[in-house]
Parts: sequence; C-alpha cells; structure tokens
Amino acid sequence: MNAFFDQFNAQQHNLDTALCVGLDPDINRLPACIRNSDKPIFEFNKAIVDATSDLVCCYKPQIAYYASCGAEAELEMTIAYIKDKGVPVLLDAKRGDIGSTAEHYARELFDRYGADAITVNPYMGFDSFEPYLAYEDKAVFLLCRTSNPGGADLQNLRLENGKALYEQVAELAAGEWNRNGNIGLVVGATNPDELARIREITGDMTFLVPGIGAQGGDIAAVMAAGQGGHMILSSSRAVLYASADTDFAAAARTVAEATVREINEQK
Amino acid sequence: MNAFFDQFNAQQHNLDTALCVGLDPDINRLPACIRNSDKPIFEFNKAIVDATSDLVCCYKPQIAYYASCGAEAELEMTIAYIKDKGVPVLLDAKRGDIGSTAEHYARELFDRYGADAITVNPYMGFDSFEPYLAYEDKAVFLLCRTSNPGGADLQNLRLENGKALYEQVAELAAGEWNRNGNIGLVVGATNPDELARIREITGDMTFLVPGIGAQGGDIAAVMAAGQGGHMILSSSRAVLYASADTDFAAAARTVAEATVREINEQK
Repeated sequence: MNAFFDQFNAQQHNLDTALCVGLDPDINRLPACIRNSDKPIFEFNKAIVDATSDLVCCYKPQIAYYASCGAEAELEMTIAYIKDKGVPVLLDAKRGDIGSTAEHYARELFDRYGADAITVNPYMGFDSFEPYLAYEDKAVFLLCRTSNPGGADLQNLRLENGKALYEQVAELAAGEWNRNGNIGLVVGATNPDELARIREITGDMTFLVPGIGAQGGDIAAVMAAGQGGHMILSSSRAVLYASADTDFAAAARTVAEATVREINEQK
Repeated sequence: MNAFFDQFNAQQHNLDTALCVGLDPDINRLPACIRNSDKPIFEFNKAIVDATSDLVCCYKPQIAYYASCGAEAELEMTIAYIKDKGVPVLLDAKRGDIGSTAEHYARELFDRYGADAITVNPYMGFDSFEPYLAYEDKAVFLLCRTSNPGGADLQNLRLENGKALYEQVAELAAGEWNRNGNIGLVVGATNPDELARIREITGDMTFLVPGIGAQGGDIAAVMAAGQGGHMILSSSRAVLYASADTDFAAAARTVAEATVREINEQK
C-alpha cells in the first residue's frame, strides 16, 4: 500500500468517517467577521479544520479558489496546517499535460504544496499522468464520470466495443494504467447507476465522490452503489457556508456531523 | 470577430508569421548568466521577447513552469510585458472543472493574469468550459488531438457512430459548442493525417499546433494538412534553449527566424 492510502484508511477506520470536506473558500462568501483579517482564507480554513478534523477522512482544497485571488501562500499554509494535524490532503487540481510539463505540475502539487493525493484529467492519456504516478507514495485520482450535467457530453459516448467512454477509463485505470497501485477514481454522486457500474469494473478501488451537499447527490443511493471499496464523499459549500455569521465554524461542524451520521446509517 | 482573433490575425498578417514561441522557462535550464538574477524567469522571458517579438503571432506561457517554483509574480510580469508590446498572449493552462470552480479558473487566467486566450480540457463537457466562453473577447482552445504518444489512448477510441473521439470533439467544437464563435482547437503536429481530418471537419477554425521543434513535428506536413484556416505553430525548447550562454537571446532569434522561414516556404 502507499502512504496516502495507508493514512487515509487509518483515518477513515479510526474515526469512522467517509466525509471529505472540500476547502473552496470564495472570498466573497467568507463571514464578514473574517473577511478583513490579514489572511482571511487561511483564517477561515483554519477555523473550519479546527472544527471538523475529527470528522473527516481527508480534506480537499480546490486550487482554483486560491489561484483566482493570488492566495498561493494561504494554500501552502492551509495544507501545512492540515498535515500537522495528521489528516491527509487531497489537492483538487485536475491537471493534465505531457512530459516535462506534467513533471512541473507534479512538483507544484506534491513538492511545493505537499499534497498527499491529487486529481488528474485523463484525456491526454497514460503518459500524461505517468509523472504523477511515479510518486509512489502519493495517490492520483483520475476523472472518470463527473457530477456535472455536461459530464455526459464525452464521458457517456458509446464506443464501438459497446462500452461508454467512462467505462473504458475505469477499466484502464483499474488495469494496465495502475502499475504502481496508486490510482483512484473521481466518480460523481449524481449518477448512482453509473457509480455502481464503475464499482463493478474496478473492484475495491477507492472513489472520490463529489456532488453530495450543495450539488444534491443522494447519500443513500451513493453508498449502496459504491459498496465493495473505499469511498470518499466530498462536500464543500454545504459545510463551509452553513452560517455566514460568527458561528460559522460551529455551524460547519453541525452540518459535518449530520453528514457523517447520514453516511454511516447507510453502512 | 473577437479581440483575440482580431489581434492575432493582424499580427500574423502584418508580420507574416505563424510562429508562436512557448515560454516554458525551466529554472535549471536558464543560462548561468541569468540564473542568479533577482527575477531570473522574468529576465529570461524579457530577453526572449525582446529578441523575437517581431517574429511571432503570439506567445504561449505554460503555467506549470511558473507554478512549480512559485513564480506567479514573474508570470504576471511576463504577460504584462508582452501585452505592452501589442502581442497577444495565449496562456497554456489546460484547466477543466465545473461551475463555480471554472469561474474561479476563468478569473485566474483572464482577470488575474490578463491572458487573451487559453487552453482547456474538454473531458468534463460543455458546461465545464462555458464560463471561459462567456468572456466573448477571449479565445478558448480546446484540446482535440494532442501530440504525445498517449494522446491516442482515449482520443483515438472509435465510437459506435464510426468516428474517433477526437473527431467527435472537433465536430462539437465547430458546431453546437461554438455559440460565441471564440473556440479554437489544440491539434498536435505529430499526426498530420489527423490534423487534415480535423481541418476537414472544422472548416476555417484556428488551430494551436504544438509539437514542432524539440518534439519533432514535420512543418511541411503540418502546413499542408492544415490549409484552409489559421495555424499557430508553437515551439518552446528549440527556441528558448538554442544557446545556454550569454548569446541565448540572439540564438533564440536565429532559430525563430529559421522556423518562420521554414513555415513560410510551405505556404
């Protein structure tokens, strides 16, 4: 096993949680009490992490929210803070490029930011994510079937061999692409039937499942469909913005607790 | 027409060049004379731009090379410097994500960095790049058929309707996806037959063609295959690292001039 999966599995087992909190801090949605602080994004994340770190199997910062406002330093601080607490960090960056460029992205995500796992787009093929897989202690979650309506545009195209494109990606990811055993898949919560199909193809592979919470994915249906392998159920806005007032961290904890309970009722 | 295509077409016409220089500054490959300066990446780019700006139709910084070493400020400075010279900037970022996340990436690329055009990964479908297309004066180059060996893994899969996946992407990009008329395509130089097929499907759409220079794409074959629409032929390492000595900028100009000549002989 690799370091990410070891740490993640221990965290998931010890705390009995499949919840991942997505750290997508939109500066315009931060509580007024924090918006004018010196490092508002880091302060917000720190408060959320302090309030929820015993309820999550990992955190998932989405890099776009930091890049849009030049908050690279606050992302670095956030990840260091989470790692100090012993919680694994899955950095959602969905990079995808080739050769030396992919090596530079790998350095960005693993060396500069210190992510334990990342998300990657598979459209450019195996050699485009090989540089990430070479970090054998890290995990690489390939996009397979995403939760957005447009996800079907390409991913559900039917191939000549009768499979949908997303099924082909799942098969490659569980088979010849997974040479170092450190691939996981991103499978949206909004299509439980397809999630079940991907579980069937991939055995006990770990799935990152965004789309519960604000995006409306059905937790019971997702948990039923995903049985047989580890699941990381990610919620961002529903937790982060549970309250816009000074009680935002406590409110986030309340929502996180309720979500964990709802997930665990399905096991 | 939109502002990027207007400016790019004028630049291409006035200077008679289809060459795009990719600004992929690897700190370990910069000439020793510049490596220890205060802002080595910006100084390097500035020298390359000063030496080549009358030979290019646009510049294409690859964001990974800046992100890997925390050089966001130098990327901002580089882009501002190029724009001051009146040359359009195509920022190669290959982002791909949904809804509010895509909006944050759009802010990163267009508002923060001031890019005139970007590259985007289409795997997540139309709604994942709609936020970029909404910037009607910017251009969005979707990955279609990429120049790396693994590009074939998914892009060449044959669909049930008889088309390859990359052909389907080309058809959607030239048709229902191109509501604002600001889509271009990324088509690698290493497969001229497929480039010709994509030209056939898309009419006069503008193609960004990486893979000449260090990647070995054949300029004559590419120019023949791409006839009928604007072409942006991108070369990075062959120009940037033409010399590792103090004459690096003059050497870059010599390679750029020779490349423009080779391209123009094919017209």
